[in-house]
Amino acid sequence: MPLKHFAAALLFGVCGLSIAGAHAATDPLPSWNDSTAKTSVMAFVEKVTQEGSPDFIPVAQRIATFDNDGTLWSEQPVYFQGIFAIDQISAMAKDHPEWKTQEPFKSALSGDIAGIMASGMEGLAKIIAASHANMTAEEFSSAVSNWLATAKHPTSGKTFDKMVFQPMLELLDYLRANDFKTYIVSGGGIDFMRVFAERVYGIPPEQVIGSTIDAQYELRDGVPVILKTPKLVLIDDKAGKPVGIYRHIGRRPVFAAGNSDGDLQMLQYTTIPRSADDKTPRFGLIVHHTDGKREWAYDRKSHIGQLNEALDEARQRGWMIVDMQKDWRQVYPEHAANN
Amino acid sequence: MPLKHFAAALLFGVCGLSIAGAHAATDPLPSWNDSTAKTSVMAFVEKVTQEGSPDFIPVAQRIATFDNDGTLWSEQPVYFQGIFAIDQISAMAKDHPEWKTQEPFKSALSGDIAGIMASGMEGLAKIIAASHANMTAEEFSSAVSNWLATAKHPTSGKTFDKMVFQPMLELLDYLRANDFKTYIVSGGGIDFMRVFAERVYGIPPEQVIGSTIDAQYELRDGVPVILKTPKLVLIDDKAGKPVGIYRHIGRRPVFAAGNSDGDLQMLQYTTIPRSADDKTPRFGLIVHHTDGKREWAYDRKSHIGQLNEALDEARQRGWMIVDMQKDWRQVYPEHAANN
Repeated sequence: MPLKHFAAALLFGVCGLSIAGAHAATDPLPSWNDSTAKTSVMAFVEKVTQEGSPDFIPVAQRIATFDNDGTLWSEQPVYFQGIFAIDQISAMAKDHPEWKTQEPFKSALSGDIAGIMASGMEGLAKIIAASHANMTAEEFSSAVSNWLATAKHPTSGKTFDKMVFQPMLELLDYLRANDFKTYIVSGGGIDFMRVFAERVYGIPPEQVIGSTIDAQYELRDGVPVILKTPKLVLIDDKAGKPVGIYRHIGRRPVFAAGNSDGDLQMLQYTTIPRSADDKTPRFGLIVHHTDGKREWAYDRKSHIGQLNEALDEARQRGWMIVDMQKDWRQVYPEHAANN
Repeated sequence: MPLKHFAAALLFGVCGLSIAGAHAATDPLPSWNDSTAKTSVMAFVEKVTQEGSPDFIPVAQRIATFDNDGTLWSEQPVYFQGIFAIDQISAMAKDHPEWKTQEPFKSALSGDIAGIMASGMEGLAKIIAASHANMTAEEFSSAVSNWLATAKHPTSGKTFDKMVFQPMLELLDYLRANDFKTYIVSGGGIDFMRVFAERVYGIPPEQVIGSTIDAQYELRDGVPVILKTPKLVLIDDKAGKPVGIYRHIGRRPVFAAGNSDGDLQMLQYTTIPRSADDKTPRFGLIVHHTDGKREWAYDRKSHIGQLNEALDEARQRGWMIVDMQKDWRQVYPEHAANN
């Protein structure tokens, strides 16, 4: 690079940084429109972090839990981890000629989600065993990394880690800047999400909670190995979410965000006072997928991410319903204000 | 308080503080003698925290895991949680007249550990179900708190949380001051340890890993409740420790401390290089109970905290064996140099 171009790049770089810095200082949530959703989240964070205020929450108690599918990234036309599983099975099919005629593999190989679903929990367990188990932790993690680097979403054509919600990335950053500890609590697989959660969301592996299959430790040629085995030890969905939180965190969150009926119990557990004396402020948030143009529009009747009971209960309990179409200036990170 | 006494107290207080402060600045491990154990731990921490050094370990990777029973506190004549279980059963016995004649309760009620052990895993499961399950998380936590506040160790007469090892408290503090994240990884019950780990060890609930029984979420009269159920989901001992680490942390530690064969696999998992290219410095530590006068002396033939295989392997793999009698100036916190 010629020196003058280098100098120009440096200059623009520095300017870019300082503008971003100034912007962040005045508006931590630039991809949110200035509607009630944004102002109420900020009012909550401001009151609970103000020392001496009756609403003050000590740092150790500032636990914020986020669902992943449909809350931090998209989940249509099918959970992205399901696409990963099908891609894995397709890649392994050459060593399993019998799969061409055996369900649920036959459906998986033709990308027939309805066919897989028709095989029920037993079929799903076979898919998980083939694509997620009977391999070491390192082998599984490499498979997910390679897939994320290359696989493209069927309609957007983006890699899947570009389909995360820019407003939610900003919200995670904003909460952490206010000494909240941010967690993922998802029905998705714990080991699947841990591969990208730190890079993409800034959430380290030890703060990712998800559905969990068992594992075994062994020395293999003198080297320690964790082998993933197919037995389910936690389905971290619906009533399993408070259980996952209790097991991994051991404290009740004060902030929870979800988007579907799978998050209902986590939102209850987080926000409902334990007794008449329990005055700790708590915040529940639901991402409502209302934007068929920039993302997808679905709720009560969706086969993925159904939002029905939790939508009714949100109104009753005062959880903030984020209208994606109205409340978000920007959906995905590309060309985001602070990118 | 008369003014001159107040002034004297203030003066002594300030002097005490400043002496302690000065001492801490020069010696983070004042209850350790200046022997190899201390100097090698400090040399490890210094080299891995020095930026630019080939041994530098980034902060996110500084995971340190500690066994609890026999490593952070005493475990003789029987695991303290076992004493808690027996005390709980004794307190509940008035509502269970049948226990007087039924094993393992009969043995538990007469404090006959050998009798309980003779009832095997099935008997132990009954003890756990009666003393640790079929109650809410809050009820269990209160029971442990109340017990810790009042119960006394059968020979020392101390409350159990006074039988923690002052040198290990200093080591935890020292590692945290160097940006290590400290975890407990114990065969003991996760929910039992979480009650006191933050107050006593400075380790928050989300960094406590232990043997785990299942739980259920429910709304009880409209209030969210976690109900502890008796099914075991993790025995966090021996080969279960690397599994617990993988499940809860999702990263391999670089520092592990234990005291028995139950810690062997955690020490292997932490310290054995994954490949010829794996040059990350790692530290294994074993507390060897050699001090029959100030604590207890036991190893290869003990019925509690047996240290046999791991003692041989420690020599082969270069794990630091801490000789409690020679390496520790002080065992328990009372009258500690910096108290």
